[in-house]
Amino acid sequence: MAVGSSELGPLYPVAGVSMATVSAGIKKAGRRDLVLFGLVEGAQVAGLYTTNAFRAAPVTLAMQHAGLGETRYFLVNTGNANAGTGAAGLRDALACCQKLAEITGTRVEQVLPFSTGVIGQPLPVDKITAAIPLASQTLATDGWLDAAQGIMTTDTRPKAASRQIHYQGHTLTITGIAKGAGMIKPNMATMLGFVFTDALIPQAQLQTMLQRAADKSFNRITVDGDTSTNDCCMLVATGSSGVGLEDQALHDQFVEALESVFLSLAQGLVRDAEGATKLVSVRVQGAASRDEALKVAYAVAESPLVKTALFASDPNWGRILAAVGRAGVEQLDVSQVGIWLGEVCIVANGGVAADYSEEQGAAVMAREEIDILIHLGRGDHQDCVWTCDFSYDYVKINAEYRT
Amino acid sequence: MAVGSSELGPLYPVAGVSMATVSAGIKKAGRRDLVLFGLVEGAQVAGLYTTNAFRAAPVTLAMQHAGLGETRYFLVNTGNANAGTGAAGLRDALACCQKLAEITGTRVEQVLPFSTGVIGQPLPVDKITAAIPLASQTLATDGWLDAAQGIMTTDTRPKAASRQIHYQGHTLTITGIAKGAGMIKPNMATMLGFVFTDALIPQAQLQTMLQRAADKSFNRITVDGDTSTNDCCMLVATGSSGVGLEDQALHDQFVEALESVFLSLAQGLVRDAEGATKLVSVRVQGAASRDEALKVAYAVAESPLVKTALFASDPNWGRILAAVGRAGVEQLDVSQVGIWLGEVCIVANGGVAADYSEEQGAAVMAREEIDILIHLGRGDHQDCVWTCDFSYDYVKINAEYRT
Repeated sequence: MAVGSSELGPLYPVAGVSMATVSAGIKKAGRRDLVLFGLVEGAQVAGLYTTNAFRAAPVTLAMQHAGLGETRYFLVNTGNANAGTGAAGLRDALACCQKLAEITGTRVEQVLPFSTGVIGQPLPVDKITAAIPLASQTLATDGWLDAAQGIMTTDTRPKAASRQIHYQGHTLTITGIAKGAGMIKPNMATMLGFVFTDALIPQAQLQTMLQRAADKSFNRITVDGDTSTNDCCMLVATGSSGVGLEDQALHDQFVEALESVFLSLAQGLVRDAEGATKLVSVRVQGAASRDEALKVAYAVAESPLVKTALFASDPNWGRILAAVGRAGVEQLDVSQVGIWLGEVCIVANGGVAADYSEEQGAAVMAREEIDILIHLGRGDHQDCVWTCDFSYDYVKINAEYRT
Repeated sequence: MAVGSSELGPLYPVAGVSMATVSAGIKKAGRRDLVLFGLVEGAQVAGLYTTNAFRAAPVTLAMQHAGLGETRYFLVNTGNANAGTGAAGLRDALACCQKLAEITGTRVEQVLPFSTGVIGQPLPVDKITAAIPLASQTLATDGWLDAAQGIMTTDTRPKAASRQIHYQGHTLTITGIAKGAGMIKPNMATMLGFVFTDALIPQAQLQTMLQRAADKSFNRITVDGDTSTNDCCMLVATGSSGVGLEDQALHDQFVEALESVFLSLAQGLVRDAEGATKLVSVRVQGAASRDEALKVAYAVAESPLVKTALFASDPNWGRILAAVGRAGVEQLDVSQVGIWLGEVCIVANGGVAADYSEEQGAAVMAREEIDILIHLGRGDHQDCVWTCDFSYDYVKINAEYRT
């Protein structure tokens, strides 16, 4: 059901990063559900965390530990979100970090825990701690695909992206993985995203780069409008290349590559969203502010009526118009509003465009990737969000998730 | 697929109101799709209209005409919303009113038009004007059920409710009909609601009564969060009983009956919402303000993940907790939050309640009518919204709506 090719392209190793993917049997016996990332000493870590007030225990702990610096490990499990688990959840997450710290001779604060899966069930600490020794013994510089598969929940495909920059004899690498297919309206990050580079970047600069890249990617996608309790997006700079970004041309090239990795991962989530058959961009231009552009874009992108019409390839543009109209824009002059489906103008001057034909609309709606453009005619701000359609399979996947 | 009994109970005539339901063949030949209400001279009319910026042409006209007073007719068609139709839409709606005015010897401003159905297609004026003579000739004091059926779109059942008040030898009657099953998050009224009484009530007081009753009923339901372009809710007091509401006891009894008619109609919409198998109330208590209570209630009531869990009768309370957490309440202290499914406490102190068992939750979720109570522990404000679950049939109905 996912949209577009599942081809990932080459996934380059990142100097200073090692990884292992093993089975702890958290939800299903034999499933490889525990991923460990090892970071070289001195690696800088930036993080974005969910804004959901019911932040999961591992997120709370990861924030605390990351704040202390000197991070050496990311310990990630799928199958259990350790969210809505109160004080016991914090104790359980800490116990897993503690086990890894003991084995590796590090301090517990140097381990950041991440969890994804069902909310509200106790973390099976014994299963996880039993699998940690094998993970720590099998850390290797390759294994991105295994890791990307290891953090999946209802995802049907692993998501990973990699870029290399060659500049004046130097090579910098950026490689990342992400997961998430439902409960997706990241407000900081996707369910889980881990991106690594061997560039040498101070932590404060790294955090700024992460925020900017996320604001153009993970923070602009929505599957169902439900922000998860477990969203985390981490960006690591190991510095192992020895190359910093003081040169402005290299810096700009690096940021472009970084943002392309982020966008590829974020769109990968939408392409593989629960039940998705289409990838849809909703771009709003001519807004009085960026907030206004986003408000309208989300109103359209999250409308169940728009999303079921997209699923049916039905150019029922009245639903887009209705969603724009209810988005809460003060004093919207509908006579100034224009709406395009792909290259076809469907609404002009507050009503159907004079030369619009149903055939034109149907031709665009039949595509697997659809661009919706809304021009509000109120100013020069714009923004864009990505979403998917709403299918029988979304209901099926979410009605049967725990059974 | 609708929830609960379809039994409507007795529908009492209202002195001063007549009605006719005929076929104009707007979408399907033979379908009775045109409803005409006649009002006695002097009847007072109060109205609430959609807040969608893309207000449909008939809504704009109904607002203008109602503002001039002396309303004598409501002309209602289904099968075509006459929305997103620009200047032509206004001209078309006016032409239908004009035809009725000519036949009945009234002024065009005394006719209020209402439309519901597909957005963005030209109103078939010729078909409607051809059917108007028969409608005006067959006006009768009874026929509520026909009228309620005549305004349906994807509704599977007519919605109507009626109450009588007996007080010191007088009888006052309130009878109303409504329609709507999708694109339902009224922000003024349901898609269409018409309630009539023979009480003698000045227009200003009637408008206040309508606003209050709608705020406790139509303005508290959501099916898919999509506010329609055509929402209208009208309350008519014909005065034909000759009985006013100066007596406070009678006034209070009347308001109670009126609000019970409104709530019955509003819940009727949710019970028959597209694909609905459950009627769900989401009540938020302990909020710092009523706005805050509503924000949380709508976040839960509109969460596709909560709604699919309700469809599956899965007590996946983690999704309710996640929706509360993302609702945007500033500085929410999750340790103060409690959540109940029916009588079962599922969340206390920010995590699963100590004595909660999955069996208890499953027993509540198996019911056809489910109450969700969320206590925020921040103040003493509260509010409640009603919604339904999210099923395969919702997707089916909305993917196939125009085919």
